[in-house]
Amino acid sequence: MAQALRSDPVGLIIREKEPTNLETPFDQVDSFLTPTELFYIRNHFHAPALELATYQLRIDGAVTNPFSLSYEQLRAMPSETRVATLECAGNSRVFLIPQAAGVQWELGAVGNAEWTGVPLGALLERAGLEEDACEIVLEGADRGTPKEPPVPRGPISYARSLPRHKALQREVLIAYQMNGRDLPLDHGYPVRAVVPGHYGMASVKWLTHVHVVREPFRGYWQTSDYGYWDELDGNPVRRALGEVQLKSEIARPRVYERIAPDQAYRVSGAAWAGETDVTEVAVSTDGGQTWTAAEFLDPVRRHAWRRWTFDWRTPAEPGRYTLLSRAKAANGSVQPDQHEPQYGSYVVHHALPIEVFIDDRTGASV
Amino acid sequence: MAQALRSDPVGLIIREKEPTNLETPFDQVDSFLTPTELFYIRNHFHAPALELATYQLRIDGAVTNPFSLSYEQLRAMPSETRVATLECAGNSRVFLIPQAAGVQWELGAVGNAEWTGVPLGALLERAGLEEDACEIVLEGADRGTPKEPPVPRGPISYARSLPRHKALQREVLIAYQMNGRDLPLDHGYPVRAVVPGHYGMASVKWLTHVHVVREPFRGYWQTSDYGYWDELDGNPVRRALGEVQLKSEIARPRVYERIAPDQAYRVSGAAWAGETDVTEVAVSTDGGQTWTAAEFLDPVRRHAWRRWTFDWRTPAEPGRYTLLSRAKAANGSVQPDQHEPQYGSYVVHHALPIEVFIDDRTGASV
Repeated sequence: MAQALRSDPVGLIIREKEPTNLETPFDQVDSFLTPTELFYIRNHFHAPALELATYQLRIDGAVTNPFSLSYEQLRAMPSETRVATLECAGNSRVFLIPQAAGVQWELGAVGNAEWTGVPLGALLERAGLEEDACEIVLEGADRGTPKEPPVPRGPISYARSLPRHKALQREVLIAYQMNGRDLPLDHGYPVRAVVPGHYGMASVKWLTHVHVVREPFRGYWQTSDYGYWDELDGNPVRRALGEVQLKSEIARPRVYERIAPDQAYRVSGAAWAGETDVTEVAVSTDGGQTWTAAEFLDPVRRHAWRRWTFDWRTPAEPGRYTLLSRAKAANGSVQPDQHEPQYGSYVVHHALPIEVFIDDRTGASV
Repeated sequence: MAQALRSDPVGLIIREKEPTNLETPFDQVDSFLTPTELFYIRNHFHAPALELATYQLRIDGAVTNPFSLSYEQLRAMPSETRVATLECAGNSRVFLIPQAAGVQWELGAVGNAEWTGVPLGALLERAGLEEDACEIVLEGADRGTPKEPPVPRGPISYARSLPRHKALQREVLIAYQMNGRDLPLDHGYPVRAVVPGHYGMASVKWLTHVHVVREPFRGYWQTSDYGYWDELDGNPVRRALGEVQLKSEIARPRVYERIAPDQAYRVSGAAWAGETDVTEVAVSTDGGQTWTAAEFLDPVRRHAWRRWTFDWRTPAEPGRYTLLSRAKAANGSVQPDQHEPQYGSYVVHHALPIEVFIDDRTGASV
């Protein structure tokens, strides 16, 4: 078995050198599957170096038959391959006004890949969930001291929980391949979770421990970070982020791109959702006054994005124009016009304004 | 007189939407003068809307003849035009490990422009400096509450001081034009300071007040922000950033660029310094083991950058390669190999590693 390679982050944008946080230049999205080397990387701590020979995945807690699996044993189990879009819950944060704390992602903390592994449900079946098993905590081998308060005494391991019903769905994988090859180090080598329909923080990398618990998990990344204030009977209550919210993004043109007047221009992008399907994308090239339906390049496929295009005749009049895209989904939801303030610095899923310049000096050197 | 236009930030990278902080994509630097619309924007607060008809510049404090000037009066004075490179003191911060707080600038919070205005020294001469005049405080019309502690009771105006001797040098301009046209709003319309040889924070925009003081100024941007810890007899002492430190940057290739093997590739970049001249730039394509002199495209011109190129025969062997550039200056200084820790999150002027991928799949779609 080949040694884990750092994926070559060809063309990625540096957001943080160490721990590694790199963004996909979203205008380069032109395939249904994001090439592995262009896939965004969001690490919380230094990527741990796990050895295949000694790797163990432990499944324990509220189960009748706790057990551990070696890497070879995991690979020997029946596998499934699924396409899933992963989006960082902080994607597009740079669009927030005023600026919110955290990595200033533009549009590219999202990607769509093919994942191969063993359904988490198969492991939980083998372990035998106790009747009062409530959540499944996924714990990675990456450890450190987090930054955002309140901060527990550290260092701590990266860990997130899934509700029991979600953990048992067949699409949740304990994955060892991405786009047909072994996971690169920065994508969780040798084994990670992939939780389609949830924000990326749920897809724990360098997974070494599946812990079944009897009460809702209240770890750091479930309460301090990746949380938001909801309201219950007039009182604020802290909730953990989970399901991806409906979103579309424009890949081309780029923000502040200069475009020739009175020409054919193919606007393109992608749209995705959580536990529903994207059914419609509309585009506005006049700041939201009028909207026209875009065409999909990809069919409906639950948990995978749908790329779309829109053929724009650019205005004859030079000036600044604002493009927007807005998705609708099968469950009736519509992408909002504005950021939903309860989500704070996360879930930036409103129709994002892409300002461009119609300019007849397009050929000029800039 | 035309109304102030927001400069069209064609192709700029968003770092913060409001207040506006936009970065030049440094790989697009291919002219001696940075086009105004590609010039980085670093605002601390919302850009104030000053009216030409009511604009006044007040010069007062430790002077014998305090006075105010209207915009028309300023324009009627003898002017000078000078080329100067302005670099934000936080430029290249994203290269720091561990990450430092602040805007995560890559390579493009620097630009070179031609500035037209009245020498500050001419105004100070007319005002008549008192003998004990010590520093000249430049105050802008932009106001707000800053973020980094310790924070005074706000809101406060953006203000920075210059030592008397620097303020009297002919190159320090009270400028109203940039690259031959009136200043755009985000570059300080209608009037700003331009302090060649100092980091950008000294070139106060939307300038409305020149205040001559009798003791060293200890304002927020002189002590809390844009400051660093120096040492005096074993004790830490807080100093204000001032003179630009010698630096070169590679514009092409970009970080993580994919490049074909065994080909001619023109590496290019720029180098600049404070109160000295860049005399030499060397390039390494093997992570610093060997160095070769680059060729300058621009002559020596105090306070302006010098672009340079280096013709590289790319390696036949695919893999990851680290490029570096290193400048030397007439005063004997050499660009350091590592970040100088006393500067904290500022003055990131060491030889910055540009990692690239030699890859024969260069033609492949990515």
